Amino acid sequence: MQIHSAIADLRAALKNRGRIVFVPTMGNLHAGHISLMEQARAHGDTVVASIFVNRLQFGPNEDFDKYPRTFQADCDKLAAAGVDVLFAPTEADLYPEPQEYVVEPPAIQNVLDGEFRPGHFRGVATVVLKLFNCVQPDAALFGKKDYQQLMVIRNMTRQLALPIAIIGGETVRAADGLALSSRNGYLSDAERAEAPRLYRLLNEIRAAIRAGETDTVKLEKWATAELDSAGWKTDYVAVRQQSDLAMPKGVDAPLVVLAASRLGTTRLIDNIEI
Amino acid sequence: MQIHSAIADLRAALKNRGRIVFVPTMGNLHAGHISLMEQARAHGDTVVASIFVNRLQFGPNEDFDKYPRTFQADCDKLAAAGVDVLFAPTEADLYPEPQEYVVEPPAIQNVLDGEFRPGHFRGVATVVLKLFNCVQPDAALFGKKDYQQLMVIRNMTRQLALPIAIIGGETVRAADGLALSSRNGYLSDAERAEAPRLYRLLNEIRAAIRAGETDTVKLEKWATAELDSAGWKTDYVAVRQQSDLAMPKGVDAPLVVLAASRLGTTRLIDNIEI
Repeated sequence: MQIHSAIADLRAALKNRGRIVFVPTMGNLHAGHISLMEQARAHGDTVVASIFVNRLQFGPNEDFDKYPRTFQADCDKLAAAGVDVLFAPTEADLYPEPQEYVVEPPAIQNVLDGEFRPGHFRGVATVVLKLFNCVQPDAALFGKKDYQQLMVIRNMTRQLALPIAIIGGETVRAADGLALSSRNGYLSDAERAEAPRLYRLLNEIRAAIRAGETDTVKLEKWATAELDSAGWKTDYVAVRQQSDLAMPKGVDAPLVVLAASRLGTTRLIDNIEI
Repeated sequence: MQIHSAIADLRAALKNRGRIVFVPTMGNLHAGHISLMEQARAHGDTVVASIFVNRLQFGPNEDFDKYPRTFQADCDKLAAAGVDVLFAPTEADLYPEPQEYVVEPPAIQNVLDGEFRPGHFRGVATVVLKLFNCVQPDAALFGKKDYQQLMVIRNMTRQLALPIAIIGGETVRAADGLALSSRNGYLSDAERAEAPRLYRLLNEIRAAIRAGETDTVKLEKWATAELDSAGWKTDYVAVRQQSDLAMPKGVDAPLVVLAASRLGTTRLIDNIEI
């Protein structure tokens, strides 16, 4: 596996490589990321991964500084997964000057996770566009666990006429249902044992809707109360339309149930499509 | 010359074309545009022009609807200038849905022309990025007459890591000094005779600075008074640093004198580098 940190070196390495498939990450890789790398292989000739912890998408009180950085272990996993080229820019490579030109997503960036993380999706959209411009892939994969992020990137790509196919990868879960996440490493043993409640509740909401429940707001309130009475601090549980994360007009359109809640100081997110 | 309106057709036509040089325009072409087309030839193998009157960069009280559209004459001029491919999308081709994801330039978008045209440079940056993503050129040319626009595009391209060389083309002028512009066609005969005063004053400011004048604010006020006493309504005359259009710290750094003023209902802009 080739590893490049400079944009010019990366571009030189990607000349005449056929169809390029790109999987951007922030490192600290788990089986969810590796699943994306393996799926990527089916979509092109050259698989490019990136590792970059993007300061722009972290709020001032978020975990940018303590976000886990495990570069050597990540490289070993990527090489074992058959990744051809790793782009691992430093901040000086990707932000040699303060980033003043940004991609501004529409109001969707201010609901759900965006409500609790102001500026987050602007930072995501901007770095993903910039990474796209460095790698110039034909396709790119993003995990469905960050559902709102996937939607922002999919819509940005279409709206800016980028010639890139955006592919969503299914969430990979532990045996007890907890969605794999780099932030799971922050959990104490007791929190880790409690954490699968989030996914269980999402499943119960889905089951209720499939069984005919149409009052989605009631379900949201019920699940929030269940979490908070078990010691969580819940940002949201929301039943939304898959296409644009707007409030559902009914339960017939494809829906998704999304949630974000804190166990101690650790913020977990998850979602389930209906 | 091939002409395409659909993005997919354009992309197919540009495969295996070698180095692509791109000159975006809003049509109503004059000798300034044609000069850019001829310069483009020296920078690559395939010259692509575009014609698109971009609604996003016009304010609600500006001249979007009456902006001159002269498509057949433009095509003749482009073909005669040796342009290989013309991209002429309809609004439905380039904005099939309302444009919700935009490029937000920094505060520079709100000074000089940006102060008088709120949202203008956001609209310019967004459409140019989108056109770049359609054409995927290796180089692109923009006239220096729209100096602030050139600076915004140059800085956006660098900051978003687009692999495109941005080249500025010198302003082409009538024999009496008036910068060629699509909007000159709005001028009455009397206004046309008065119009060269703008460039004469820019030259006088340059001459004064070269002769040792350091009070640039005094020069700006003097030229504004000269214009307004001749019946113009002046938005600004400004001596700025070339690199970022900030106020000059002295007269040693490369400077540019920029002006925007109205003759009747027609807004003219011009500039001159020192």
